[in-house]
Amino acid sequence: MLRARVGSVVESNRFQMFILGVIVVNAITLGAETSTVLHAGFGPVLAAIDHVALAIFAVELAARLYASGRRFFRDPWNVFDLVVVAVALIPAAGPLAVLRSLRILRALRLVAMVPSMRRVVTALVRSIPGLVSLSGLLVLLVYVGGVIASNLFGDTGDPRFSGLGPTLLTLFQITTGDGWSDVMRDLMDEKPFAWVFFLIYLLVGSFTMLNLFIAVVCSAMQEEITLPAQRSGSHDDLLLREVMALRDEVRALRSAAVER
Amino acid sequence: MLRARVGSVVESNRFQMFILGVIVVNAITLGAETSTVLHAGFGPVLAAIDHVALAIFAVELAARLYASGRRFFRDPWNVFDLVVVAVALIPAAGPLAVLRSLRILRALRLVAMVPSMRRVVTALVRSIPGLVSLSGLLVLLVYVGGVIASNLFGDTGDPRFSGLGPTLLTLFQITTGDGWSDVMRDLMDEKPFAWVFFLIYLLVGSFTMLNLFIAVVCSAMQEEITLPAQRSGSHDDLLLREVMALRDEVRALRSAAVER
Amino acid sequence: MLRARVGSVVESNRFQMFILGVIVVNAITLGAETSTVLHAGFGPVLAAIDHVALAIFAVELAARLYASGRRFFRDPWNVFDLVVVAVALIPAAGPLAVLRSLRILRALRLVAMVPSMRRVVTALVRSIPGLVSLSGLLVLLVYVGGVIASNLFGDTGDPRFSGLGPTLLTLFQITTGDGWSDVMRDLMDEKPFAWVFFLIYLLVGSFTMLNLFIAVVCSAMQEEITLPAQRSGSHDDLLLREVMALRDEVRALRSAAVER
Amino acid sequence: MLRARVGSVVESNRFQMFILGVIVVNAITLGAETSTVLHAGFGPVLAAIDHVALAIFAVELAARLYASGRRFFRDPWNVFDLVVVAVALIPAAGPLAVLRSLRILRALRLVAMVPSMRRVVTALVRSIPGLVSLSGLLVLLVYVGGVIASNLFGDTGDPRFSGLGPTLLTLFQITTGDGWSDVMRDLMDEKPFAWVFFLIYLLVGSFTMLNLFIAVVCSAMQEEITLPAQRSGSHDDLLLREVMALRDEVRALRSAAVER
Repeated sequence: MLRARVGSVVESNRFQMFILGVIVVNAITLGAETSTVLHAGFGPVLAAIDHVALAIFAVELAARLYASGRRFFRDPWNVFDLVVVAVALIPAAGPLAVLRSLRILRALRLVAMVPSMRRVVTALVRSIPGLVSLSGLLVLLVYVGGVIASNLFGDTGDPRFSGLGPTLLTLFQITTGDGWSDVMRDLMDEKPFAWVFFLIYLLVGSFTMLNLFIAVVCSAMQEEITLPAQRSGSHDDLLLREVMALRDEVRALRSAAVER
Repeated sequence: MLRARVGSVVESNRFQMFILGVIVVNAITLGAETSTVLHAGFGPVLAAIDHVALAIFAVELAARLYASGRRFFRDPWNVFDLVVVAVALIPAAGPLAVLRSLRILRALRLVAMVPSMRRVVTALVRSIPGLVSLSGLLVLLVYVGGVIASNLFGDTGDPRFSGLGPTLLTLFQITTGDGWSDVMRDLMDEKPFAWVFFLIYLLVGSFTMLNLFIAVVCSAMQEEITLPAQRSGSHDDLLLREVMALRDEVRALRSAAVER
Repeated sequence: MLRARVGSVVESNRFQMFILGVIVVNAITLGAETSTVLHAGFGPVLAAIDHVALAIFAVELAARLYASGRRFFRDPWNVFDLVVVAVALIPAAGPLAVLRSLRILRALRLVAMVPSMRRVVTALVRSIPGLVSLSGLLVLLVYVGGVIASNLFGDTGDPRFSGLGPTLLTLFQITTGDGWSDVMRDLMDEKPFAWVFFLIYLLVGSFTMLNLFIAVVCSAMQEEITLPAQRSGSHDDLLLREVMALRDEVRALRSAAVER
Repeated sequence: MLRARVGSVVESNRFQMFILGVIVVNAITLGAETSTVLHAGFGPVLAAIDHVALAIFAVELAARLYASGRRFFRDPWNVFDLVVVAVALIPAAGPLAVLRSLRILRALRLVAMVPSMRRVVTALVRSIPGLVSLSGLLVLLVYVGGVIASNLFGDTGDPRFSGLGPTLLTLFQITTGDGWSDVMRDLMDEKPFAWVFFLIYLLVGSFTMLNLFIAVVCSAMQEEITLPAQRSGSHDDLLLREVMALRDEVRALRSAAVER
């Protein structure tokens, strides 16, 4: 009984609006904390609001967990909420201080609360599996290009090619097309044939990127376009069934005419 | 009677061409005013032309308002015309001097006058509602990324990350892909792991941008493609009705054959 | 008689291949002329080849003009050939020296000779009319943005905003997205609110660009997609005619049955 | 008999997984070799692993060649494997040292082993023929633009325009849109009208690029979209055949009715 009652409270429109408000307020205070001026003047207030918001989230999630039982973990959005709130419980000292800056990820709970955004993100996530092969191909291309570039340009002293790590990062940069000509021209002072590598890499890489892009468009399209197509398909089925019934009618008529 | 007569004058082809001419002349003089040479030599002349053009627009709008009555405000293009002309009445002193530079927005009235451009803009505006969720998602991404970047890189002294405002602007820049590698490399001198943030942000951000793009394409496509599809749908309906009539015919024939 | 004979020679496969060869050789020599080394060593030879090629083109065009008579000017490709060859007859002195460098445009005659390229260019040119409204809108946007930017930033001493001309060029640059953040950051030292202009301009401009792009894709798609759709349409017509004939058959049968 | 047995071993799932593992290990060691630290500490080990991997590949290919006989060369993936492995047999001295850095291309054998990636690459390769005309057009554009730019800007002393080669490279850079405004502004100090060339080249070039892009999208789309369309086409055929059979039925009925 209590379970059902908690569940109805947690899923009531009013409660959801309240949580939405807490998320927005929390996002604003976390933004305000980044300002040194505001941090100096209102630091304790902002921290207090943050703690209250965290407490509200913890109670809310506990209530939803209690109300749903095991089913809670079946909805990936619930898991997302849980992870995002749990991040703030990590102590702020040491190398995990970085993790504390992830508290703002809580603002992404907005997405889980607004149905239209939720739909959009669900669609985005669903389009990922179709991209695995092409993404893998792209990663392979960057790796192969990186090893070659490392061998060819590693001895130039250019910090962008000092070791495999920086080289892979540089190749990722070239794949996005940002400032590739600067990278190439700097190399060409020492290696006049560097342009051959860049030309081939750019043509192959951007051709693959383009096709990755098309794969996303196509899969998105198919859902948009095949929907009316299927409807028209069911229309065709109706027609076919109508014609078949007509044929039966005629056959019956014929046998009636002949039997007489 | 006067109302109808004013209306017919205002909507006559000749009057419209005259207003179009005034818009073009006004756009040219406002452009000429930006040249210090022309401003020095012909300043008063240009200002006079501008005043005359403004007067013509004011009279035109008053006439159209008189002719249409309340209906005037139902057409958003009329409201647009009104706002754009009203901007010029703001006094040029003080902080509103910026607003005076918006007088050139009057040139956009061209769009309202040329039917083919009007259609294009109407289509653009109509595609906006479908983009609200994805745009909201993108704004959320920039905000969340901005707070994280502010926490991570705020202490580097890089002016591009000095406070939440500049950080948000920098992240918007990164989202458009312009010079993101320069920003990253400058940071990596102090924060060698800055690339992790940039890699994740770029992948998530550009994936969302890509899908925003696709959403626009799809909605545009649907209108283009479903139109012929619907026509072919009505064709199918014709066929179905024909087959149904045929079946009635056969049924009547059968009952006639049996009754005999 | 002579006319027909000249026509058959001019349109023979062998003659076309010969002209194609001359075009390619001429393109190569014009490219070689740009090299100071080759120009110093083989200048007279290259100039001689160029003159011979020009003479061949002149004779070829004269022959085709003679063979076709007035019809010659109906094919826009012929007009293109004529213009491109005529450019080389302009004397190389004075400000028209620039025009002499346009001699290489003759290499574009390749496009007119290779059927598959010709089809591609014809398709490109045909897609232009559908873009007039959106291009006009984009030009209007750049102009309006240019006048505003000129008023706002003209007094900063930035050479990129010194007068309407440079400002328009800078806005075109921003529209293509190349280095817009550098332009903005340079301005923000003096005008801290420059980002407002850039943000609005980029969002409006790139949204319009995106739609311009979609318009091209859609019109290209329609031709690709409606073609099979029309074929399926004719299939539907076949079906409809078949059903109508069937109905006539049944009606005839019924009247035969009743009349008896 | 031996042939068939070797064939069944070579195509067994376990053997394929083993080769896959060798490819991955080899890719990692080739990457590790680029690190000076790892090369100094484990150089001989890495080289040994590389030699073993090469030996395994050689034996594998020999076995597959023996098992398939001449049919081996009909599958382009086999030829690809052969070439990629053969590259490593080239001695590492002299100008061919560059070729040795191509050993990492072996990692691309992954693509040939993973079916989903293989499909993706096959689709990519298949879309190439449709792009030949447009790519040719783009190459022609870059060449024509390069000769013109060489004539116009060759005397400015800008290293980006010193000779036809660098100019062509610069124009390729402009076509990708990377840093074109920097190139233009540097030229405009000496040649104030350089912007005319850049404006025309950018508009024509990016318009062609856009259409090249669309050609890829369209051909990819057609395969995606015409597939369901053909299915619906066969549905239509079914319907047509059904209606025709119905007509025959009615005709038979009529002749039966009349003959009586």
